[in-house]
Amino acid sequence: MTQIHPPHRLLMGPGPITADPRVLRAMSAQLVGQFDPAMTGYMTETMELYRGVFDTANAATVLVDGTSRAGIEAALVSLVEPGQRVLVPVFGRFGLLLTEIATRVGAEVHVVERPWGEVFDVEEIADAVRRVRPHLVAVVHGDTSTTLAQPLEGLADVCHDHGALLYCDATASLGGNPFRTDAWGLDAVSAGLQKCLAGPSGTAPITLSDRAVAVLDRRRSIEVGLRDATSPVAAEPIRSNYLDLAMILDYWGPGRLNHHTEATTALYGARECARILLEEGVGAAVERHRLHGSAMAAGLQGLGLRLFGDQAHRMTNVVGVEIPAGVDGEAVRGRLLTDFAIEIGTSFGPLHGRIWRIGTMGYNARRDTVLTTLAALEHVLRAEGAAVPAGGGVDAALAAYGAAA
Amino acid sequence: MTQIHPPHRLLMGPGPITADPRVLRAMSAQLVGQFDPAMTGYMTETMELYRGVFDTANAATVLVDGTSRAGIEAALVSLVEPGQRVLVPVFGRFGLLLTEIATRVGAEVHVVERPWGEVFDVEEIADAVRRVRPHLVAVVHGDTSTTLAQPLEGLADVCHDHGALLYCDATASLGGNPFRTDAWGLDAVSAGLQKCLAGPSGTAPITLSDRAVAVLDRRRSIEVGLRDATSPVAAEPIRSNYLDLAMILDYWGPGRLNHHTEATTALYGARECARILLEEGVGAAVERHRLHGSAMAAGLQGLGLRLFGDQAHRMTNVVGVEIPAGVDGEAVRGRLLTDFAIEIGTSFGPLHGRIWRIGTMGYNARRDTVLTTLAALEHVLRAEGAAVPAGGGVDAALAAYGAAA
Repeated sequence: MTQIHPPHRLLMGPGPITADPRVLRAMSAQLVGQFDPAMTGYMTETMELYRGVFDTANAATVLVDGTSRAGIEAALVSLVEPGQRVLVPVFGRFGLLLTEIATRVGAEVHVVERPWGEVFDVEEIADAVRRVRPHLVAVVHGDTSTTLAQPLEGLADVCHDHGALLYCDATASLGGNPFRTDAWGLDAVSAGLQKCLAGPSGTAPITLSDRAVAVLDRRRSIEVGLRDATSPVAAEPIRSNYLDLAMILDYWGPGRLNHHTEATTALYGARECARILLEEGVGAAVERHRLHGSAMAAGLQGLGLRLFGDQAHRMTNVVGVEIPAGVDGEAVRGRLLTDFAIEIGTSFGPLHGRIWRIGTMGYNARRDTVLTTLAALEHVLRAEGAAVPAGGGVDAALAAYGAAA
Repeated sequence: MTQIHPPHRLLMGPGPITADPRVLRAMSAQLVGQFDPAMTGYMTETMELYRGVFDTANAATVLVDGTSRAGIEAALVSLVEPGQRVLVPVFGRFGLLLTEIATRVGAEVHVVERPWGEVFDVEEIADAVRRVRPHLVAVVHGDTSTTLAQPLEGLADVCHDHGALLYCDATASLGGNPFRTDAWGLDAVSAGLQKCLAGPSGTAPITLSDRAVAVLDRRRSIEVGLRDATSPVAAEPIRSNYLDLAMILDYWGPGRLNHHTEATTALYGARECARILLEEGVGAAVERHRLHGSAMAAGLQGLGLRLFGDQAHRMTNVVGVEIPAGVDGEAVRGRLLTDFAIEIGTSFGPLHGRIWRIGTMGYNARRDTVLTTLAALEHVLRAEGAAVPAGGGVDAALAAYGAAA
């Protein structure tokens, strides 16, 4: 087997997307020891950088060493005791994932649902909070399965008034959509690098409010082998050791209590993702995602395609587009990959075979990627038997850019 | 905050150690899509490579996306139902970690213990198996906290005769010590990259016997959002979604059922670690670890230092050495790092302040690293007030190399 030599790809799906080369270069740096001052310095810097990314003052802002799904599970297993009620507003696949994980950590799961392609009025969720009286509300911000973003402003007040924590999965939206951890009153937010943050999957940034940390403080149990007579030992410890956020905070905190061996290369990458975003400015990055996402949406419509879902609540960084009648969606994706080395996304569950999902995010939220994808898609659609206006996609995108200029 | 630019370090502790530059270069390759033929091809190749590393024919040989601790927890949470008995032979800190994790996943944990610095006769563990009748025996192979390796040959027979699975944590030993998954009858083995495999932490290779897979098959529960009317749904699902090995196998298997988004960069690194090891040959790599580990041990004795623990069962890749009376162990470590950029290890629990741990593993199992470390240590020990024979460390190591030649 030869050395790693992946073919060139332009990743325009719902993520992972092409990584920023700066991130990959950062990840090629040599290792230092786990408690080397250089390493602990990088850890502390990474905490500060992600406070900027999450728009929070939370001291408890760290990385979980796993994919974004590990970050979700860390939040739920650490904040929810078996038998406690969790309310999940479901408007797509990743809401279902929250119910799945909450069930597995032993929660009593309550659900409110919206058809795929819609979002909730905040007041609908608030009503459910008043009715269910959950210990925690778990909600996805941007659900890539439907390409929609759930408004969150105003939800925390009703949660807090009823003694509930508010957890948000911001994996797909953070860095490319407006997101304000503190201003929105969120108690826990987890994310990943492989969407708007322009890095590889494998690392889950997470931030926790003082209210969430207070829950962890009550559940903290120092590991056998590291504890002494004065160490806290919970009667019923958190059901996971690896994803125990109290332990992870103790490891990242000034006490540097040994837990896992931090994934140094992944941390180098996460740190660079945040540096890139903050150099651009979060506001500018969101505007960039909005600009190129809008141009892509205009271009797709210019090709005569129909967009999927409530466009007033579309994520900036991914658009769902209906597969035209008579066109084989997988044949289009295959030909795009084979002839143009461009990947766009398929879809899950009730949308499978009905829509493609096309992303413009992170390193690939650019004018050239939008125009290249539209030009290629035009050729492929025609080759697969669809009637598409010549140049309609690129022209409409250019018009959108012109209107924005 | 500036770009990543870590200071040069020679990592001669118990791991993580300096990564092989080939691994870091592999990790700087650009991403491809999660289900791109190039990606699934790399996944399949990685499975085959790790069969070679583990010395197994197990089809179920994959990566868990997390540090070695994630691999341990994946094995225990997936193979053990709450209330089932787990037997852990403890001879150091990582045996304690197995008890910690097994407790958290709900097992009824039984322990047999050996003082730190000793290992068990296999027959002692076998007696405990007959007495406890566990569902699973969880044992560390090489426990870096004491630097000793537990013999495992012959243990599987008694486990299987009594209906128990045998799980082994080979994080610290794999690739540098003799290790035979199939010949020893092991049902589950997990590891990490940051020891003899010369990579960064963050990825846990794992292999499962047919017997272990049969347990997973009984516990399999297809995720809500992906399941259909014919999908298996367990009455009591595995308590973790992220570390559910049945799901992880379904993702790596021919069905490619979506689970996490594979950490592509980490996979590139893991694949290269295995390629490097198999190019050298596992047997040759073990011999290299034995040679340089022995030379380091001889050199430390040549400096008048005493080795720790049962030397007949010392791991090839790490040696414990007593801190001489009157010498400040942390001052020695600090000066080695400051003046020579060399890191050696401190120790945990009952050995804290009593021994240093010095590794010769993976990319750093080399003659130059051994001699450089010994020369530096001689200077530092003298500076910290110890009486050490001039050149005694390097000369003894050279003599050991000469005798081996």
